[in-house]
Amino acid sequence: MLTYSFHDIGNTPLYEHLYKCIKNDIVNGTLTAGMKLPSKRSFAANLGVSAITVENAYAQLLSEGYIYSLPKKGYYVSDFSRSLLAPPASGEADTPPKEKPPVYYADFSSNQTRPENFPFSVWAKLMRETMQDKNSELMTKPPCGGIYELREAIAGHLRQFRDMHVRPEQIFIGAGTEYLYGLLVQLLGFDKVYAIENPGYEKIDQIYESYQVSRRFIDMDAQGIRIDRLEESGADVVHISPSHHFPTGIITPVSRRYELLGWAARSDSRYIVEDDYDSEFRLTGKPIPALQSIDLLEKVIYINTFSKSLTSTMRISYMVLPRRLAEEFQSRMSFYSCTVSNFEQYALMRFIREGYLEKHINRMRNYYHRQRDTLLHAIKKSPLSSFVMITEEDSGLHFLMKIDTGLSDTELTERARKKGLRLTALSRYYHRPSGNVEHIFIMNYSSLETEHIPEAIRRLYQCLAE
Amino acid sequence: MLTYSFHDIGNTPLYEHLYKCIKNDIVNGTLTAGMKLPSKRSFAANLGVSAITVENAYAQLLSEGYIYSLPKKGYYVSDFSRSLLAPPASGEADTPPKEKPPVYYADFSSNQTRPENFPFSVWAKLMRETMQDKNSELMTKPPCGGIYELREAIAGHLRQFRDMHVRPEQIFIGAGTEYLYGLLVQLLGFDKVYAIENPGYEKIDQIYESYQVSRRFIDMDAQGIRIDRLEESGADVVHISPSHHFPTGIITPVSRRYELLGWAARSDSRYIVEDDYDSEFRLTGKPIPALQSIDLLEKVIYINTFSKSLTSTMRISYMVLPRRLAEEFQSRMSFYSCTVSNFEQYALMRFIREGYLEKHINRMRNYYHRQRDTLLHAIKKSPLSSFVMITEEDSGLHFLMKIDTGLSDTELTERARKKGLRLTALSRYYHRPSGNVEHIFIMNYSSLETEHIPEAIRRLYQCLAE
Repeated sequence: MLTYSFHDIGNTPLYEHLYKCIKNDIVNGTLTAGMKLPSKRSFAANLGVSAITVENAYAQLLSEGYIYSLPKKGYYVSDFSRSLLAPPASGEADTPPKEKPPVYYADFSSNQTRPENFPFSVWAKLMRETMQDKNSELMTKPPCGGIYELREAIAGHLRQFRDMHVRPEQIFIGAGTEYLYGLLVQLLGFDKVYAIENPGYEKIDQIYESYQVSRRFIDMDAQGIRIDRLEESGADVVHISPSHHFPTGIITPVSRRYELLGWAARSDSRYIVEDDYDSEFRLTGKPIPALQSIDLLEKVIYINTFSKSLTSTMRISYMVLPRRLAEEFQSRMSFYSCTVSNFEQYALMRFIREGYLEKHINRMRNYYHRQRDTLLHAIKKSPLSSFVMITEEDSGLHFLMKIDTGLSDTELTERARKKGLRLTALSRYYHRPSGNVEHIFIMNYSSLETEHIPEAIRRLYQCLAE
Repeated sequence: MLTYSFHDIGNTPLYEHLYKCIKNDIVNGTLTAGMKLPSKRSFAANLGVSAITVENAYAQLLSEGYIYSLPKKGYYVSDFSRSLLAPPASGEADTPPKEKPPVYYADFSSNQTRPENFPFSVWAKLMRETMQDKNSELMTKPPCGGIYELREAIAGHLRQFRDMHVRPEQIFIGAGTEYLYGLLVQLLGFDKVYAIENPGYEKIDQIYESYQVSRRFIDMDAQGIRIDRLEESGADVVHISPSHHFPTGIITPVSRRYELLGWAARSDSRYIVEDDYDSEFRLTGKPIPALQSIDLLEKVIYINTFSKSLTSTMRISYMVLPRRLAEEFQSRMSFYSCTVSNFEQYALMRFIREGYLEKHINRMRNYYHRQRDTLLHAIKKSPLSSFVMITEEDSGLHFLMKIDTGLSDTELTERARKKGLRLTALSRYYHRPSGNVEHIFIMNYSSLETEHIPEAIRRLYQCLAE
């Protein structure tokens, strides 16, 4: 049977290591098309890991198309003869098949904006006006933090909606939060220890790993990240989303927030990265103030994005640095060009200044409210309702659904996939999977087609009943 | 007198270290507004460095506004009381002055596109069509390398204009070459040693430094980077621009290219980064083939940008990875989202597909040809012509001008600045300044206003004659 070593894998989660080993063997041809992979149970016993580890590795390989499954038979290696590593064809005749992502009937994992919700006509108008009026500014290299007028507009927006009082000079615009995380490592130091939430948004971990900095995975309790664990981890920088944790939805209360600021205050090198990725979309109750707004010691680096409030395909995010770090960025890293197009920076400036952003957020909040209610209603009316428990439904765009089933997360995910549904289990977001988080699924409703919701829930119920 | 230590500064150029020391003292208030800095000669003697080192440090501080100069008096610390580090004003009353870049009568250092040269009406049309036709694709997350159809269009362009035969899957689009350099460090490894050209484009060094990887500065000869020096440097990766070196304009001949490929072939970990930043704008003679096009061992990573062929303010660049590295990127780093907006990717795809890029490049090549001739003619007609020697004028956008003068590079640059001219000396691009590259200036004509050229040359001559 296949055997892989789990020695010296450092901080890499077990399932991820296993997934990479198998993938490598598929890519380099050791495992060939059509080969059957070992059953999860016997493979796990052979490797000395839990069955969940193998399951998660297989799920990842499945979702990326490296393997496929046959009902009641098992998992098989996909055909890779048309891959990039096949012998090069000469000249122009060579047209490999396009990378076509699968299309789902209902995708509960995606946070994409639906095309009908993007304000195309307003955006087209603003872009047209931008090109008419700004000919010479459009061709002028902006400061490294971005176009000053856009940073002013963002500062105004933050004052109005997050009670944050910051100067435009503290705001740095970049092509996506992923890019900004990388800038932060360069600013704060490769020698620092970075703490991230467990469970958490997996890309944060992947990016810190790609920058080869030391990471610590800090457990959460019902109030957010645990301060005792954070303290003993030896971390310098902690990366959190206190206003709406992904994926659990936990909101960190003010007492824990002050404890976090207290933790940061105990050493000069400590900083808190506040990832405020969807604070605009709290659907019920008062908005949660930003941690940054109660930070008097200038220890909080605030990050937000227009991915949720506009579209993730435009790639516009920003960070607000404490003044000392803003000065340091300016002095050490201002050689970097701003990564967002001038054209879109000026259009976005108008979008904010002329009140369109506020209107759009209000419209989207109402839309998500209705979308959530439609989904909750469909579940309630379905026989599925006797098998599920729903939590954290007050914030926008997703909630958690615990399903009472004997199926493993991988089995249910795979059954759903065959019915055109894309589901992601909460367990996938843990650094090391633990037993008690099985059977909980993240239900993201932002990209669902409203008319598909009842049928999607019917299909989900079928997955359990089969 | 001010004293700074030059111990333990590693690879940092002397002038850069001195510049940073002084800047820190200005920012932290040790040197206060209005204080006079030591004269270059006595400061150099005191520090045990050459006068050129002090000159270059002062020139950098001048250009960033940290110090100012008074004729026949010397250099003084600027007023920084309105800086970010001043006590925070409360609430909205606080509106610090905008960062306003100086406006030059003629800027020989800028490579910005002139607004009248950007194809605004075509771009506006394509953007409008993109928003009309692509509603749903615009909201769909593209693969990490970018929108497939754009990568196909770029592959077609490279086949036609650079005789490069690459698959769209090898092309990775990113928000500027600076961003791509960072991805390459993550892909090739933080433990690798990176060799860069001396002299060279300073940002390349700054980015590798910001990623804290080991750098080696390799001297050039008339054919490009020296292979003997490269071999003895112990470098794994060499970053070069063989088709048109910046700033010297050197074109690496085919013999040296094969030597470079030979160097790369001698170890698995070796790679060549070919930065082909302005190959479209060779004005005279045959186009220079890309190194990538003669690379059979897949050792060349090709990088290019639309900064020169369209505008640097849109931030669209790409790299072509050898197939094995493309696979590795896909498997290890495909979690990264593409950093360029879908809107601009689709508009650019149409721009290339519908032949506009080719037309635009031809138009710009003619424009730069005329612009260069106007500048050369103005120099020839001016008394300046008896004091200058021009080299490397066949490639586009800039040439070198050696000026016969007793003025130091800093003095001349500063005199020119006062007359509204921005000049950059070749010596600024050397890792460690050496004596024999004084008095050579980079004359970039891409952003000049044509009507300003004769007057600009008149003023430049005045600087010498004063």
